[in-house]
Amino acid sequence: MTDIELHPDRLFPTDPSVRSIARRLYDEVAGLPIISPHGHVDPAILAEDQPFGDPANLLVVPDHYVTRLLHAHGVSFDSLGVPPGAPKGDASPREIWRTFCSHWWAFRGTPSRYWLEAELVDVFGVRLRPSADTADEIFDQLSERLASPEFRPRALYERFGIEVLATTDDPADDLAAHRQLADDAAWKGRVVPTFRPDPYLEPARPDWPARVAKLGEVTGEDTTGYAGYIAALEQRRAYFKRNGATATDHGHADAGSRPLEPAEANRIYAAALAGAAKPEEATAFRRHMLTEMARMASEDGLVMQLHPGVLRDHHTGTFDRYGRDVGGDIPMTTEYTRSLRPLLERFGTHPNFRMVLFTVDEDVFSREIAPLAGFYPSVFVGAPWWFIDTPDAIRRFREAVTDSVGFHKTAGFVDDTRAYCSIPVRHDMARRLDCGFLARLVAEHRLPEDEAADTAADLAYRLPASTFRVA
Amino acid sequence: MTDIELHPDRLFPTDPSVRSIARRLYDEVAGLPIISPHGHVDPAILAEDQPFGDPANLLVVPDHYVTRLLHAHGVSFDSLGVPPGAPKGDASPREIWRTFCSHWWAFRGTPSRYWLEAELVDVFGVRLRPSADTADEIFDQLSERLASPEFRPRALYERFGIEVLATTDDPADDLAAHRQLADDAAWKGRVVPTFRPDPYLEPARPDWPARVAKLGEVTGEDTTGYAGYIAALEQRRAYFKRNGATATDHGHADAGSRPLEPAEANRIYAAALAGAAKPEEATAFRRHMLTEMARMASEDGLVMQLHPGVLRDHHTGTFDRYGRDVGGDIPMTTEYTRSLRPLLERFGTHPNFRMVLFTVDEDVFSREIAPLAGFYPSVFVGAPWWFIDTPDAIRRFREAVTDSVGFHKTAGFVDDTRAYCSIPVRHDMARRLDCGFLARLVAEHRLPEDEAADTAADLAYRLPASTFRVA
Amino acid sequence: MTDIELHPDRLFPTDPSVRSIARRLYDEVAGLPIISPHGHVDPAILAEDQPFGDPANLLVVPDHYVTRLLHAHGVSFDSLGVPPGAPKGDASPREIWRTFCSHWWAFRGTPSRYWLEAELVDVFGVRLRPSADTADEIFDQLSERLASPEFRPRALYERFGIEVLATTDDPADDLAAHRQLADDAAWKGRVVPTFRPDPYLEPARPDWPARVAKLGEVTGEDTTGYAGYIAALEQRRAYFKRNGATATDHGHADAGSRPLEPAEANRIYAAALAGAAKPEEATAFRRHMLTEMARMASEDGLVMQLHPGVLRDHHTGTFDRYGRDVGGDIPMTTEYTRSLRPLLERFGTHPNFRMVLFTVDEDVFSREIAPLAGFYPSVFVGAPWWFIDTPDAIRRFREAVTDSVGFHKTAGFVDDTRAYCSIPVRHDMARRLDCGFLARLVAEHRLPEDEAADTAADLAYRLPASTFRVA
Repeated sequence: MTDIELHPDRLFPTDPSVRSIARRLYDEVAGLPIISPHGHVDPAILAEDQPFGDPANLLVVPDHYVTRLLHAHGVSFDSLGVPPGAPKGDASPREIWRTFCSHWWAFRGTPSRYWLEAELVDVFGVRLRPSADTADEIFDQLSERLASPEFRPRALYERFGIEVLATTDDPADDLAAHRQLADDAAWKGRVVPTFRPDPYLEPARPDWPARVAKLGEVTGEDTTGYAGYIAALEQRRAYFKRNGATATDHGHADAGSRPLEPAEANRIYAAALAGAAKPEEATAFRRHMLTEMARMASEDGLVMQLHPGVLRDHHTGTFDRYGRDVGGDIPMTTEYTRSLRPLLERFGTHPNFRMVLFTVDEDVFSREIAPLAGFYPSVFVGAPWWFIDTPDAIRRFREAVTDSVGFHKTAGFVDDTRAYCSIPVRHDMARRLDCGFLARLVAEHRLPEDEAADTAADLAYRLPASTFRVA
Repeated sequence: MTDIELHPDRLFPTDPSVRSIARRLYDEVAGLPIISPHGHVDPAILAEDQPFGDPANLLVVPDHYVTRLLHAHGVSFDSLGVPPGAPKGDASPREIWRTFCSHWWAFRGTPSRYWLEAELVDVFGVRLRPSADTADEIFDQLSERLASPEFRPRALYERFGIEVLATTDDPADDLAAHRQLADDAAWKGRVVPTFRPDPYLEPARPDWPARVAKLGEVTGEDTTGYAGYIAALEQRRAYFKRNGATATDHGHADAGSRPLEPAEANRIYAAALAGAAKPEEATAFRRHMLTEMARMASEDGLVMQLHPGVLRDHHTGTFDRYGRDVGGDIPMTTEYTRSLRPLLERFGTHPNFRMVLFTVDEDVFSREIAPLAGFYPSVFVGAPWWFIDTPDAIRRFREAVTDSVGFHKTAGFVDDTRAYCSIPVRHDMARRLDCGFLARLVAEHRLPEDEAADTAADLAYRLPASTFRVA
Repeated sequence: MTDIELHPDRLFPTDPSVRSIARRLYDEVAGLPIISPHGHVDPAILAEDQPFGDPANLLVVPDHYVTRLLHAHGVSFDSLGVPPGAPKGDASPREIWRTFCSHWWAFRGTPSRYWLEAELVDVFGVRLRPSADTADEIFDQLSERLASPEFRPRALYERFGIEVLATTDDPADDLAAHRQLADDAAWKGRVVPTFRPDPYLEPARPDWPARVAKLGEVTGEDTTGYAGYIAALEQRRAYFKRNGATATDHGHADAGSRPLEPAEANRIYAAALAGAAKPEEATAFRRHMLTEMARMASEDGLVMQLHPGVLRDHHTGTFDRYGRDVGGDIPMTTEYTRSLRPLLERFGTHPNFRMVLFTVDEDVFSREIAPLAGFYPSVFVGAPWWFIDTPDAIRRFREAVTDSVGFHKTAGFVDDTRAYCSIPVRHDMARRLDCGFLARLVAEHRLPEDEAADTAADLAYRLPASTFRVA
């Protein structure tokens, strides 16, 4: 009774006739390789292939899905060793693990619970249900597994069936880990960088001048002027592309894209470097740069990913003490139809341009994103992301977009995770849910089963590969 | 395996106990006559009763649901003969049809696929699944059918079981086709015009001055002044009503309805005619005119339909080359509660006034439209429209509105189509879905089956007839 | 056929395997006591324990869910005796009841219908389906029941299994009924007041100066100045707390919470008292006061409930004639992420502060409220409220929030009703729906049944008790 059980029919629809169709569809796609075109795994993990640390620092401390909900239940970040990498104070890994296990009830019904259970059983062969009583035994079992060679990152990469893994990288990054992997004859996998320029495009950030200066250093361009700044960004995109990148990634407060006249862009750039740009000018410049990024994408063919609409670091006191990415980011309403019009007017029908639109505002799927992707050849619907990469939200997503855009303008699942060991579980979850959705269409006599099976394979494998140009 | 099959239980819920209830409910309403109170069929088709053209120009070229998704998959409008009626260049009907059939996979899961399959089988008796391989054979079968007398428009009208068909017409239209039908002793059907004045109410449109001048010509009123303009609109409404109209139709960017003082309306009208109205004045005038339309409706009893919130012609390059209505219209968030307040303050409880509210922004159903219809005697909830006239969205609609407004303040299904042959299929789809929804209420013991059956007939037939005053 | 039947499986999912799980879960929670931490029952009903009046004035006239939908179907408020307590004109209770029963069809599918049916059968033992034909017989049966001692308020309190009942009270109220109950040795129940200060926090209201003056009278504070006004509010909160209150309740047009500098607060307060505050100043002051309320809550520990986003009295003509709360309130989009940031920056992580967020804008559940409650220890997700306290909306709510916040940061069901006899039915409805939701998780192998059963009891009893600090 206190064992975790992974039922083979988990996440399938409950109606027996639909479930049996879902199972047949799933059986055909369960073993397909994983394409992970958007995520946050540190490539050095694979380059160095060192054993992972202790269970707490692998599964709890760096997972802000987990630590935020513990925090919401009154557990202090200090007692969880947050932020990762900071001096841990008094909380030992075993104590952190105990705190986590004794709050297992708080995760009922959440995707974190689903992912963690599946990881424990499928990846680590641990079947005890976490609780205050079982915490130590699970900690010990996990520690033992992590010490053995088959739990090193490269062995897991192989076992997980990953074909392509994209990381997320700073434009000034030298991509050393990626180059190390490329030069390593023993390495058979494929890890590609992704160009993520947000901090370089937002003059309102305190670190923007330093970032821009760094960009000048790395490229040799004169980034004290707008022209050099543009040239430096183009040079770094080319560098990323030479090192395997197929995509860029953009996350701003909104999806605004109105371009500026060159003179105005020059003027604001200079003002911003001098610390004299007004907030609304900084915003205008950032929106201008989004369309500049689209212009570059139409030239170099890097797929442009956009995921706007999150208010970062909602609670300043927490940010000041614990830094970014500890769970204090909250979604906002996000507008795409009018915001992206300037960009799409220019590049929406360009044959080389491609854009994947993500959202954390579910309303937008049926109202804006699906209609845009149902007209513009360049626009693809991104998978539910972050707060909504969950069983029920993924179902709602398919229900919301399929009607107006079908399946083949959706980009396929992205795991978007820094939790390396959860990658296979997350993709498996998406495959189960997509097969469940397709099974309903079959059972409602809206799609023959042979076409459903073909579509399931498209969603699991072919579409992410082709959409992100990693095929 | 490559035949299309129309299963008798299609679109019903999958749970066997619910499905059997749905089937019983559906059996009682499947054969009821069709009331189509809102659509875009050209009345000349019925007045002249000529054979339809080739399959491509009947089923593909004019259907922007179909051509937009092909465009989104990289098919050029030129190769699809879009816009309809333009010189076709090199694309023959057969080639257009081949292009369409070879992209059949792109429509999996969409309502277009559902409608087209049902039309092929039910209307045309064609059972081959479209593909590159079957395109020619289907084209030939359809061409043969279209040449025979039982596929002429009037024969189909009879076969489809249409009782009333509303068209959408320009206020300056002489309604010649409607009058021709009225004078034709051989014609037993009922085709009524709908007054659609949008272009006459939006001074920001480039063609507005010419429209207003035309209105003066047609009516003999002096439309160089505001008073004449109002008189001309009233006169045309009366003309439409004499020719059978029971409704007007209004689609603007938003639902704003704030009235202006008469002097201000006069002033902006004059400025607009002189080309000197500012954009915000043009918007204010348009909103003022919405409430003027409500005032007229409270006097002449024409049912006022409102469907705001679409940004038309999102991609100017496409508009410049291919014109309107080729798929480049994208929904936006739309606000009703505050926007319609000025109008409803004045006419919301007027005994003669009636307003049907449509939306493409699904959020609005439970939050704004259902609550408004649950208070104001004049307000009815319109059926899901355009991007959301689809199986899953129609289910969501009933789930969203029934709780707060029940069934009997919803206006009944509208097909809103220019695809004449899809009319019976669309109404049949809505009947199946409504019966499925009602069956769930029965199976959850929330409604006895006798009341569900009575409600199914209300939704399919009685409510559209009474709401749109065509009974 | 014309009897009302309350099926034991009502509201459970239809799939037999899921339904049987739901039934098992429900059996364990059906008999738990009722915690009703938010509602509008008049405490004098229990203090005085007089028989209820006639059926119409118990079940129809004061229930704006019922009268608004009748009004929407063209029934005049006059013929329904609305507003309650006004001179009734010609409509006798029996006539009102007949009008109601002859419109029974209008309530198909609505929660009002569900509640009323369950009340008729379960509370009153009446099994006739309402109609024009049965109206008189039902009226007579109900009248007979209401005259008997076991239908007095205290007897029903006992029979309903209520453990705590919170009322909603004006800050200037002397809480006489609450004190009378506390002093009554024969009374074994627990009725607690709730501090509802809205009218005192909105200087834009015409009655604000009089309210503030009253506050001065009641407290002896000098409310002609801002400092005395704050002191008076604090004093009344303390008075409420001494009389059993555990919570406050706040409903404004939006969730804005930006605090003012003390000097600015003083200045606007003085201007408002002098009738010289601009609308935007009045709004700024109201938002300031929301954060002041949070400050006080962090000190006195009263749980702060917020339910913004309703435009009250949408139709002024109706308001002028019939007053508030007759059905003319319409929801609007509501924003929480940015609006509440100033308040949560200050008190969101305060160990003594607690805030329950309600909404009538469903979109906000997954996008804003659940993420906020998933980070801030102080924030809890309120149950669906008012327009969305209905079967399908409650299901959507669990689907929308569980993924990101689980179950244990949701506050439990609140009935929010002034319809005393509907209290057990409403809680029973919520328990059935929560058990149905949990049963699906079990059937999808996302949660073991023992944890689902434990969670069902948390949702039905433990969470409302602990969240609202009435345990």
